[in-house]
Formats: sequence, C-alpha cells, structure tokens
Amino acid sequence: MELATLRTARGVTAAVRRGDRWLALPADNLSQFLLNSSWRADAESVLASATLEAGVSEAEAELELPLPAPGKMICCGLNYSDHILEMGRDLPQYPTLFAKFADTLIGPDRDVKIPPTAQGALDWEAELAVVVGAELLGASVEEAREGIAGYTLANDLSMRDWQKRTLQWFQGKAWDATTPLGPTLITADAMDPEDGIEISCEINGVRRQHGSTKNLVFSAAALVSYVSTFTILRPGDIILTGTPGGVGMGMDPALYLTDGDTATVSAPGLGELTNTIRFSK
Amino acid sequence: MELATLRTARGVTAAVRRGDRWLALPADNLSQFLLNSSWRADAESVLASATLEAGVSEAEAELELPLPAPGKMICCGLNYSDHILEMGRDLPQYPTLFAKFADTLIGPDRDVKIPPTAQGALDWEAELAVVVGAELLGASVEEAREGIAGYTLANDLSMRDWQKRTLQWFQGKAWDATTPLGPTLITADAMDPEDGIEISCEINGVRRQHGSTKNLVFSAAALVSYVSTFTILRPGDIILTGTPGGVGMGMDPALYLTDGDTATVSAPGLGELTNTIRFSK
Repeated sequence: MELATLRTARGVTAAVRRGDRWLALPADNLSQFLLNSSWRADAESVLASATLEAGVSEAEAELELPLPAPGKMICCGLNYSDHILEMGRDLPQYPTLFAKFADTLIGPDRDVKIPPTAQGALDWEAELAVVVGAELLGASVEEAREGIAGYTLANDLSMRDWQKRTLQWFQGKAWDATTPLGPTLITADAMDPEDGIEISCEINGVRRQHGSTKNLVFSAAALVSYVSTFTILRPGDIILTGTPGGVGMGMDPALYLTDGDTATVSAPGLGELTNTIRFSK
Repeated sequence: MELATLRTARGVTAAVRRGDRWLALPADNLSQFLLNSSWRADAESVLASATLEAGVSEAEAELELPLPAPGKMICCGLNYSDHILEMGRDLPQYPTLFAKFADTLIGPDRDVKIPPTAQGALDWEAELAVVVGAELLGASVEEAREGIAGYTLANDLSMRDWQKRTLQWFQGKAWDATTPLGPTLITADAMDPEDGIEISCEINGVRRQHGSTKNLVFSAAALVSYVSTFTILRPGDIILTGTPGGVGMGMDPALYLTDGDTATVSAPGLGELTNTIRFSK
C-alpha cells in the first residue's frame, strides 16, 4: 500500500492510494493514523469498500509532510559498507546514532529556507527512512522487521560548518524545517531493503549520490532492534539509515548547496523527494 | 516560586508551594501548566487567593517527575571552565550539544532500573537543568534570559561503554527512565546561575562532584539563545547545562555505579534529587 498525508479542498487528511486516486483515511495525517493499532486492516478495508468514484485524483491533492509528529527520530551515520571501505576505514561494530526532533522535518516540494548563518556549507544526504508501525522495546531483529510500518525517503540536509563546530553532530542537523521527508509511505509488505533499494540524490539534475540498501552495515530491521534496546519506539517514529558516498563535503573541492538549487532524493518504488533551497536574508 | 508535579490522594497535579503546604494549580503537571502563557500570573493568583487551610501538607504529597513531557531536551557537554582548564584543554568556542527524548526522564526518589547490558560502566553527571518558559526562536541572550521559566536539577546518568561505542554520545545517554530530574522547579526570579549555583553530587553520601555555575563557559541564557538560533524552544523544554569535574570515568581507577548505590544531586535553593540504582536481571 501507498499511504500519504494530503491537502485537498476539504483539508488535510491521511490517505491511501488506489490506482490514480487517493482515498481518505480516518486521521488528519499518517503520524496520527499509525497510532491506531488496526491501521493496516483499516486501510485495506477502505481500499476494498470504497466506491469507484470515491476519493480525489492526484491532481486534486497536494502531498504534505507524511509524518509531521514523530515522537522520536533517530539517525544512523556511516552505514554504507561500500562507501566506508572505499574510504579505507574498517566496518563499524556498532551503529553511530544521533537524534533529531520533529521540527526538523519538511514535506516534499517545499522550499527549504536557510538563514544566513547556515548558508556556508549546506550539504545533501539521501537516506532511506524507516517508519515504525508498532510499539517496540527490546525487540529482536525479527520482531523489529515485523514492527516496521514501511519506508520513505529523506534528505538529511546538513550544515557542515555547524556540524564540525564540536565533536557532536547534532547542531549541524537540528535546524527547523530543513530535513525533507516523503513523498509518501510505502508499506513494508511491498519492499525489503535487504533485497536492495537503490537510493539516489540528484542536485540540479546531476546525480551525486547512489547506493543500494543491500550494502547497509546495519539493516533497517537491525537498526530498529538496536535502538529498541535502550528506548521504546512507537508507531510513527522514524529511523534514518545513513547516506551513501557522494556528499558535497567529500568532493574536491567541496561542493555545497546554494540559493535556488534543487535536491532530489529518489528510489525505485519510493518515488521522488524534491526540494528547492532558498537562502533567506 | 517553587512549582512541582505532585501525587496526592486526589491524583496527580501541578502545584505551587506556600509555606509547608502545596496548593493545586489548574494542570496535571508542570509540562502542561507552562503551556498557558499566563502561568506566572496564574500561580501568583493561587498563592494570593487560596484560603489558609487550602492545599495539602508536604506529608500528604509525593513528588513526581516535574516535567514529564518536554518536546525537546538539549544537553551541553564540556561546560565547566575550571574542569576544562584543569584537564589542560582550551575553553571551547562553541557549546557541544546533543539531544535526549522525554522518555529518558524519571522523577525524584525513584529507583533507576538498569538492564544487564548497561550495567558495565554506569556513571553520574550532576547538572543544572534550565526550563524554558516561553516560545523562543532567534532569541538574543537577554530575550533568552527573560524566557527562562526556572531551574531544577538533573543527573545525566551515562552508560560510558555505550557512549564510547561510537563518536556520537547519544546511545550512552538515551536509555529510558535513567535521567533523574527534579525535585521541583524554582522560578527564575528566585535565582540566577550567573551569580553561582553550587551543584554537588554525592554517591552513597560521599561527595564526588562539586562546581559553581559561575564557571559555566556558556551560561544558561547563552545556551538557550544559541539553541534558539536553529530550533524553536517552547515552554517546558529543557536545557541541561553540563557537569562539573568528578565523574566516575575520570577517577583512577574508574569508579562506576552498582546495584543499590544512591546518587544525590543537590544545590542550595534547588533541593536534593536522590535516586537509587537497581540492577535488573
């Protein structure tokens, strides 16, 4: 199933896709929808029972940030083995984790506004985002896999100058409304990152990043399991799985985003997440 | 004013102290109470108008976690100048920041349960906690100072083995119900950390840490201002200001907490925050 948070003439709603139409689900957004433990069955029931004319066409709907209110967002760095090995490093024994708050998120097709003090070294990071679909605490990898609601894309835009001010990355990753997420949520029954999801990032149409989730050192399910060792995960929480090689900081000379640039994160089956950078004064 | 979240025979409520009695405030807890922008005036009005017999005595009330639902908790490391200088390091130009989620918190006098995998290197960190009292975004230091609701104490208990697994500290600081906070909230009109609040930590009655907030490289107001550069702060959000010298990791040999140990964080005017460590099987 493909789920989304939509803006239509009637307001903002969670929705499920059937063909080229979106059918409303009984929640304002997917963060809220996933809190109902029967969400899978509810969405399937809407798909099965809606009349042919029900819902709105794609043209009548604008995609919003699919998950506006994750209680927790936990991100993994250094997770693509091919990129780690090409840098001459050993594969890590443990995932490198840091946290983000929900205010960092912004929806697809939105302008990302960057204030002057953060314009110096703005970089892209295409990522697979894992969306939790159940309460998980101390989950085995298998239980974690069962507890994943689905997948979407993220661009963990990073202020490298702020990230490097200290040893802790948080302040380079914590700016409000600078982490694009979306465009929609593909439920876990439709794909498995361990089979390989090809994640790409294009800047102004030029491909800069490409990697397969087959090369994740810590798989989506392994990350969810690991995090659930120390903190409870709840429906709608988000785990970002790290970014493949090809970020601007790694180029020689380094290439950073500037006013008017467009960044597109994409993957077969997950669609495209495109945002334009706007430098504010 | 001294504010608290209390459990009484009538349930859990926000409260304000008058003499040796607690007067109920119109909210379930202080996280909720601070969301009302007239919270200061509301509390003063309760203090002024309650009858002499109103409220409950201290004996009838049990202190709960004062702020159970901060939207954001942001922590500063390496912030006591005397400790940094004695370690032979230069004073930092920027605050080292990392994030925690609300699930990490636990109230005063509660047992802190530590699962087997986190029992190896459990350390104490006494800290002054700053509680935000207004919406702040892009706040100057002066605006930040005006926007502070008040102060309480925290013990940023740290799983050093997990903290050192990678370069990012998050996973050593993110365990649910392992960050004691409290005992109460002292409003900002009653004290100023820049005048020097003497923070101590005792383990089983032996003083292990002691520092004055006069020696903070980044003052409470400076930290709030700095964070508000990149993310909005809201009433009830919490900033932890770092810990002075004397943690167990820094002893030779290192000393870590074990089953049955009691940790007490205290400061004149802020009371005592005592918790017992319980190793679970």
